[in-house]
Amino acid sequence: MNSQPTIRHALTTTREGDFAQWYQEVIAEAEMAEESGVRGCMVIKPWGYGIWERIQKLMDAEIKAAGVENCYFPLFIPLSYFAKEAEHVEGFAKEMAVVTHHRLVGDGKGSLVPDPEAKLEEPLVVRPTSETVIGAAMARWIQSWRDLPLLTNQWANVVRWEMRTRMFLRTSEFLWQEGHTAHADRDDAMAETLRALEMYRAFAEGPLAMPVIAGEKPENERFPGAVATYSIEAMMQEGKALQAGTSHYLGTGFAEAAGIQYQNREGQQAYCHTTSWGVSTRLIGGVIMTHGDDDGLRVPPQIAPQQIVILPMLRETDEDAALLAYCEDLRAALARQTALGEPIRVLLDKRPGKATQKRWAWVKKGVPLVLEIGGRDAAGGQVSVLRRDRLWRADAKPNFLAQAKEEFLAGAAGELEDIQRSLFAEALARRDASIKRGIDSFDALAAFFGEDQRYPGWVELGWARPTGVELDAVVAQLKALKLTVRNTPMGGEPVSGSCIFTGRPAVERIYVARAY
Amino acid sequence: MNSQPTIRHALTTTREGDFAQWYQEVIAEAEMAEESGVRGCMVIKPWGYGIWERIQKLMDAEIKAAGVENCYFPLFIPLSYFAKEAEHVEGFAKEMAVVTHHRLVGDGKGSLVPDPEAKLEEPLVVRPTSETVIGAAMARWIQSWRDLPLLTNQWANVVRWEMRTRMFLRTSEFLWQEGHTAHADRDDAMAETLRALEMYRAFAEGPLAMPVIAGEKPENERFPGAVATYSIEAMMQEGKALQAGTSHYLGTGFAEAAGIQYQNREGQQAYCHTTSWGVSTRLIGGVIMTHGDDDGLRVPPQIAPQQIVILPMLRETDEDAALLAYCEDLRAALARQTALGEPIRVLLDKRPGKATQKRWAWVKKGVPLVLEIGGRDAAGGQVSVLRRDRLWRADAKPNFLAQAKEEFLAGAAGELEDIQRSLFAEALARRDASIKRGIDSFDALAAFFGEDQRYPGWVELGWARPTGVELDAVVAQLKALKLTVRNTPMGGEPVSGSCIFTGRPAVERIYVARAY
Repeated sequence: MNSQPTIRHALTTTREGDFAQWYQEVIAEAEMAEESGVRGCMVIKPWGYGIWERIQKLMDAEIKAAGVENCYFPLFIPLSYFAKEAEHVEGFAKEMAVVTHHRLVGDGKGSLVPDPEAKLEEPLVVRPTSETVIGAAMARWIQSWRDLPLLTNQWANVVRWEMRTRMFLRTSEFLWQEGHTAHADRDDAMAETLRALEMYRAFAEGPLAMPVIAGEKPENERFPGAVATYSIEAMMQEGKALQAGTSHYLGTGFAEAAGIQYQNREGQQAYCHTTSWGVSTRLIGGVIMTHGDDDGLRVPPQIAPQQIVILPMLRETDEDAALLAYCEDLRAALARQTALGEPIRVLLDKRPGKATQKRWAWVKKGVPLVLEIGGRDAAGGQVSVLRRDRLWRADAKPNFLAQAKEEFLAGAAGELEDIQRSLFAEALARRDASIKRGIDSFDALAAFFGEDQRYPGWVELGWARPTGVELDAVVAQLKALKLTVRNTPMGGEPVSGSCIFTGRPAVERIYVARAY
Repeated sequence: MNSQPTIRHALTTTREGDFAQWYQEVIAEAEMAEESGVRGCMVIKPWGYGIWERIQKLMDAEIKAAGVENCYFPLFIPLSYFAKEAEHVEGFAKEMAVVTHHRLVGDGKGSLVPDPEAKLEEPLVVRPTSETVIGAAMARWIQSWRDLPLLTNQWANVVRWEMRTRMFLRTSEFLWQEGHTAHADRDDAMAETLRALEMYRAFAEGPLAMPVIAGEKPENERFPGAVATYSIEAMMQEGKALQAGTSHYLGTGFAEAAGIQYQNREGQQAYCHTTSWGVSTRLIGGVIMTHGDDDGLRVPPQIAPQQIVILPMLRETDEDAALLAYCEDLRAALARQTALGEPIRVLLDKRPGKATQKRWAWVKKGVPLVLEIGGRDAAGGQVSVLRRDRLWRADAKPNFLAQAKEEFLAGAAGELEDIQRSLFAEALARRDASIKRGIDSFDALAAFFGEDQRYPGWVELGWARPTGVELDAVVAQLKALKLTVRNTPMGGEPVSGSCIFTGRPAVERIYVARAY
């Protein structure tokens, strides 16, 4: 009896089997992060943090190129800074870590307790975002139109007390960048808001190889106090949406609350128009759920801490020296090359351990190219190349390609660039195939998401852009189906037909989806 | 009557007049940092943060080159992690920020208060250092000798509740890197401890141009729980010592407390030997007090966010366009060059404002080279160059040098390298001239520091390396003179004579000084 060869995947859980469990397994097996023992906080391990460092480096260059300057603001924010916000801003989130004491003292029973003598007069909040404290600084720094625009950014940790946490996607502490800018008028502030949005779109679709829809969030999803909120939305492999970055035009509301005024060219005092925009370690969760497969992570080469790993098949014999010399030569030749605009990042992994075990560890980490080099390869001037995004042959064996070393070296940069492109193309094709169009009634929408489809994807609709109580009703209708409006894409084509919620003519396009 | 020309310095306070006040004025006038309104926390402004980014970038490359991998550990540490440490470790510091609640709630009087319903079962401490939480992770990560050495580092913010704060030198929140490593045996751990120390020495004397003594701290100054603590000590311009970095060999004590064990090659369980090492934003305070002068900061070119600033003398006439084109051409030509191993960082400052005001702002920030370009310079192919470390002519005028543009371009990289060298040479000469030798009794030491010298500097002594109660007595004697033992230099020459504290033969050299 002939049996179809079966691939033995590196993970025990498949995406098809249990997507949520698969996600956790990728993170564990790729050694990206782990639970810390501290509620809702994770330890980001070298491979996960290395990806964040790559994101930071590339994004920071974009931020600086836009004339934005990095600063650092305090971790702690006095409680009183929030009181005014809480008063004025509906939807003010109150789940924050509050510091109330500044000393520990023994309790006489071998434990430590907060010292009652060291209670703070005013509690301090661990920053959930730095809007208020940066607003206060802007009010000090800005005097006249000459000081505008004021463009600041901060890379920092922030804390939001989350009840249900998920690594990279929703943790109590996370790492992010927050841009905060002040402008003389609406046009300049709006241009900055959209510049940041476009920076995020290009970054997601470039280095992250993650297709996104950049667009405006509906009114009910605006950042509290914002005049307009924009987002990039990515589709994960099981069809859910991930909001991967946001950019807010805040009007003059925050400036009025914080006293950010300037003297204009006519000598009059005016309030600034402000913006804020941010992305976080959540992007890494997006990369996992966009590119991961049943063998672990696949990291786009531009954000891979290592793009090529060389594994010498050491035998603890005298021949190892020649093999290592060959591998080191290969490493050095690769490190001198440029791919995707930067020197190739290549690691010669000489650690003890079996070569096949090490191979699978790197496969699960998603390193774009793995080279296995045995003594015979070294003697014959060969390399054996495994491309992470084409891992398996038809006969269910690892898809190693034997190449002459010189031939491999000549093509290595192009190969990395091709992987970057291929990952994006694959994700884009999947995303586009998972957008349903032509639904013309709410019942049809309910039926579509009610079907027993595992991965329904997104629905693209025209709508009449309802606001206020009319929008509230739409939100409630969708919520009953566990759906949300993601955003209205920027610069979309004209829309026809009628709004399935209001019956009025549709004025813009929206995406409706389940979301993280 | 002839009068000597008097320099009109850019600062109002001189170092000679009031060093502490001068320090604050440099920070304010160079726009490096300011008080945040949050007790003990500062806002680091773009120029100060830019210097920190330069430090991070260069130091991180050294850390990575040593095979150390960056991770990120939680901001919060459960109280119980400290209880054991407090029990075992004398000198355990208890001034820490304690989080006790996770929600705010309105108090019904228009204010917010910590929600009594949201009190944490176990309070969380905002990390003062990550020893305990990293130790717990190491215990999970290390199984066998194959996992060793485990070399980790973290760039993070930490909090120590300080009663008396001083920007960059001692703030409640500060930024730092903390290296934590685990090794199979003492020799390997000690080698790592000394590698980190040497990395810090080379970094201080290289990029920071700040001469330091690398050496071992006396027993009483060890990090609590450490077997040996090493430091780099820099002399500030008023003669006080600044501990600018530390490296600790922790023996097996921390591993025993955290359960960091491994199976050795013989199959037996053994405790790891661990190290930790760190530098912080305090380095920036050291740079200010090493290189600053009565005109503000002078930043060594290697850590200057901008190395060259071009100031076009705009007149708001039609001729500005040609002037700007000339300046842009100059900027681009400089940006293509390499100095000190990196592309030259050059800024064309086109902001509105008077050229002389802008000049003095950049002088106070300490940018190494300022170029002022007027319409005549542009027409004649000239540049007017002001070198920050040679600011004044004998006639008390700014020391501008007119040069042909091509000549300046040909020499610019060399000029930056010369400034880097000169700043170090100047600081080294001052430091070496301020080390007093030949004091042969405690009375002579007391007399030396008791004299009405404004800047006594350091005293180099031989001593018998007292320990225990004998050392306690020495520490008390010195404390009465506001002095401390800084360290015993590494690899010093043999020492002769007798110890002024014990009368026994001296066995090693120490530096005694007032310190930050």
